[in-house]
Formats: sequence, C-alpha cells, structure tokens
Amino acid sequence: MNTESPIGIFDSGIGGLTVVKAIQAALPHERIIYFGDTARVPYGPKSEITIRKYAADDTAILMRYQPKMIIVACNTVSALALNIVEKSCSNIPVIGVLKSGAKLAVQITNNNRIGVIGTQATVCSNAYAYAINQLNPDIEVISQACPLFVPLAEEGFINHPVTKLVAEHYLTEIRTQGIDTLVLGCTHYPILRQVIEETLGSGISIIDSAEAVALRTRELLSESGLLNPSHKVSVPNLLVSDLPQKFSMLYQLFMGSALPNVDLVEV
Amino acid sequence: MNTESPIGIFDSGIGGLTVVKAIQAALPHERIIYFGDTARVPYGPKSEITIRKYAADDTAILMRYQPKMIIVACNTVSALALNIVEKSCSNIPVIGVLKSGAKLAVQITNNNRIGVIGTQATVCSNAYAYAINQLNPDIEVISQACPLFVPLAEEGFINHPVTKLVAEHYLTEIRTQGIDTLVLGCTHYPILRQVIEETLGSGISIIDSAEAVALRTRELLSESGLLNPSHKVSVPNLLVSDLPQKFSMLYQLFMGSALPNVDLVEV
Repeated sequence: MNTESPIGIFDSGIGGLTVVKAIQAALPHERIIYFGDTARVPYGPKSEITIRKYAADDTAILMRYQPKMIIVACNTVSALALNIVEKSCSNIPVIGVLKSGAKLAVQITNNNRIGVIGTQATVCSNAYAYAINQLNPDIEVISQACPLFVPLAEEGFINHPVTKLVAEHYLTEIRTQGIDTLVLGCTHYPILRQVIEETLGSGISIIDSAEAVALRTRELLSESGLLNPSHKVSVPNLLVSDLPQKFSMLYQLFMGSALPNVDLVEV
Repeated sequence: MNTESPIGIFDSGIGGLTVVKAIQAALPHERIIYFGDTARVPYGPKSEITIRKYAADDTAILMRYQPKMIIVACNTVSALALNIVEKSCSNIPVIGVLKSGAKLAVQITNNNRIGVIGTQATVCSNAYAYAINQLNPDIEVISQACPLFVPLAEEGFINHPVTKLVAEHYLTEIRTQGIDTLVLGCTHYPILRQVIEETLGSGISIIDSAEAVALRTRELLSESGLLNPSHKVSVPNLLVSDLPQKFSMLYQLFMGSALPNVDLVEV
C-alpha cells in the first residue's frame, strides 16, 4: 500500500457512483476501484444481520486490490455495519458516507433542526441521529424513510409526475417540522434532488453525502500524506456482481457519460 | 418420497405466497414447504446468469425436505431457469407459474390477442409469448414490463393515487391493442389487481397465474396418484433467507392472516 494505491469504494449497487463522481471531481488524480453488489441490491429493505454479512463480502472483494483507504458509499452499510468493514481491513482508514454527511449537516444548520431521509434500514437504525448528536447533542433530528425513491431513480422516473406525488407523500410532514437542513441519506437520492428541493420549498439546505464524503476524503489523504502525486487523470475501475440489461442506462444516468470497461466478480 | 411428502414452492421473495394461498384453497390437505429468497430479492431486474444461479440454490434448499413436486412461484425463474430447476431435482415433477398461466390464457381468449405484464427480465425473455405460441401459433402476444409494481405492492401502496398513476403509465398503450385477456405475469401483481382492472376498463379477462398453477397442480397430483390422503388441514412450513422488519406486515398483506413460524436458512 502506497500513495499510488487505489481508493476502494463500494455500494449495494450502482447508487454509489454518485460518490465516485464526487471523488473524481475533488481528487482527479486518484485511482478508484469501485464495487457495486448488483446481484444482491437493494440492501435497504433487508435485515441488519444480512447487511453485515454482505458488508464483509464487499470489503473482502476490494481488499484484493490493496486499497489505501475504503469509502463505504452505501448509507445502509454505513449505518449498520461500519465496524464490520473496519474489522475486515484492519490497518487502512475507512470513511462512511453517513458520518461525513452528518458532520457537514452539523456545520450548516443554523436552527439546530436537521431532517434526514433514507432507506427503511438506515432510518430504523437511527444512525444519523446518533452521529449528529455525538457532534452536537442539542440538535433535533427528524427522519423519514422514502423506500420508493430508489426504484423510481433506477427506473429513470426523474421528473415524472409519479415521483412528484411520491415526494409529496414522503416529505409533507417533514416539511412542517421547521428543519433548515435536509440530509440525502441514500446515494440514489441526488438523482431526484430537483424534485425533492421543489417539494420542500425554499429555505432548506440540501446535504448531498457524496459531496461531503469527497471533502472528508481529501482532508484525510492530505493529513496522512497519502495523496497520489500523479498528474494523470485516472479512469475508475468498475466491478459488479451482476450486469443486468439496464446497467448501461443506469450508468449514464448516474455518471452522465458512457459505460467504461466493467468486470464481473462472484459474491 | 410418497403421497404425504410436501409440495415444495419457491419464489425470489414473499410474492409467491399468492401461490401458497391458491394451493391451500385448492388442496387444503397438502403439506407445503415454501422458500422465499428474501436476502436476494428482487430477481426481476437481474441478469439471466444470476437468476439461473439463484434458481439452483433455491431448488437445493427445497430438496432437503424431499418434496413430491416443486412449484416455481417466481415468474422470472419460470421464464429463464426452469430447466435448471428440473435438472436439480431429476425425478420429481416441476411446475412453473409461467406455463400454467399461459395455458389458462390460451383457453380463455376469444379474439387470440393476449396481453402479458411482468418484470423486466420476464418480459425481455419473451417466454410467455413462446409458451403461448407453442399452444397456439395464431395468438398475438403483447407484453409490457411494469418494474415499479413490485416495490409499490411491497410498500403497501395498494389503492394509492401513485399506483393509479403508475398503472396509467404502464397500461395506457397495452389497453389500445385490442387484447381480451391479460396475464398477471408476476406473483406480486394480484395484490394490485383492483387498480390494474380499473385502469384497463371492462372487457378484459385477468389471468392470475397463482390460480392457474393451483389448478394444474391438482390435475398433476391426481393423474400421478400423488394426492395426500390425509384429511387434516396443513399449515405451510415457511423458510426465508432473510427476515427484515416489515416481513410480518407483508405476510399479512399477501395472506390476510398473522405470521406463522418462520425459519431462516442461509443462501
């Protein structure tokens, strides 16, 4: 492991590409190895025990590439199984989207009322509220699970009236709770950011955990002298456990560019 | 294996319980062993190679219970991997929901125009059209993938305006194609039957594959002298690969009764 080693990033599926995109923008000279567990996606509606098993598998796959750090791009894993990831890669740093998003939200809120939206598993774990209150116990956290946002994003219902109606259904109550900051606690949600913002109305800052984790990664690599000295722009190395027909369309949706080479790995 | 051996039924998740319910109604004295692969659900958006691997795993789990037959309650597996199931259990009969649904649709249509709705994988496989045209090559089959119906059913959006709007989105075109019969080619769809019927309007017969497979199962057991002679009403034995928090709510939704004992198995 050295400065030229890759940054390992994993997610339950393709949603974590929002993190890849943010890392590329912040750190264009870093090599990235990304694993998406597309054969077992989604993790959000599954149990803690299953999510912890999958997190260990995903970490083991990335460790084959001797990364200099691991980013858990999956909020569900960040919420329920970050210690499993840390245990599976002993000596290298691990960053989860959750703590990075929580930290940025705490910096941004003025009225100490933060909303968090995520999958059923993330919201039920209460992990965002815990992470936020570790930083500032006076902050009130209001959470809302939005389970249909992932399939809507994956089906490309981006500006569709159905998505608007689903957003109304999920966000009507949280909108009345006086929050000034909302964390998008799932890597798919930035795809639906526009409809979420329109539904919330003005005056609420949106925290995209992907951007928050990219800031934290730059900080950490810089502090520990692990920034890649190269001046070449690197293309991410993409691994998935399944390659369904619509994968290429989804990649385009998340990354805004055509699909690069992708390798299949067995889980 | 004898007349008192159980009927093995599997599905990618809990959707196949609509088949369990139909079998219980048609054959109340049969023992049922059901496996739902809730740790890897859904299969519908995944690739053929992954679906075939999962189908072999699911069959192996049921074979531990020495069933007298296997019912593939998953339309996606029926479409893409029925021969894998047959190979994995050599000497016992296998029935898939797909062929049973296709057969009933062929019997019911008057104008030889049949619609089929299902997951992306089922529709892309063209397996319903193939099975229908094997029985009658003059029938025209019009297919439509409805990928959001599964998450909507699982989230309990049964009579919600969102589901109505999604149904309009998917069914508007197929409604204008002059079909007189529509096959619900996914075990979740009977849960949304009412909104599907309302959206289609009158004059289109709906084929529920769960009911079709129950009729075919009674026929097959009777022909081969394998009907259970018991007069006791049997409670199904339920196995799942994961037990998420909302499992009990989903069971209630599909079966209309409280959750019985459930065993966890590893995949």
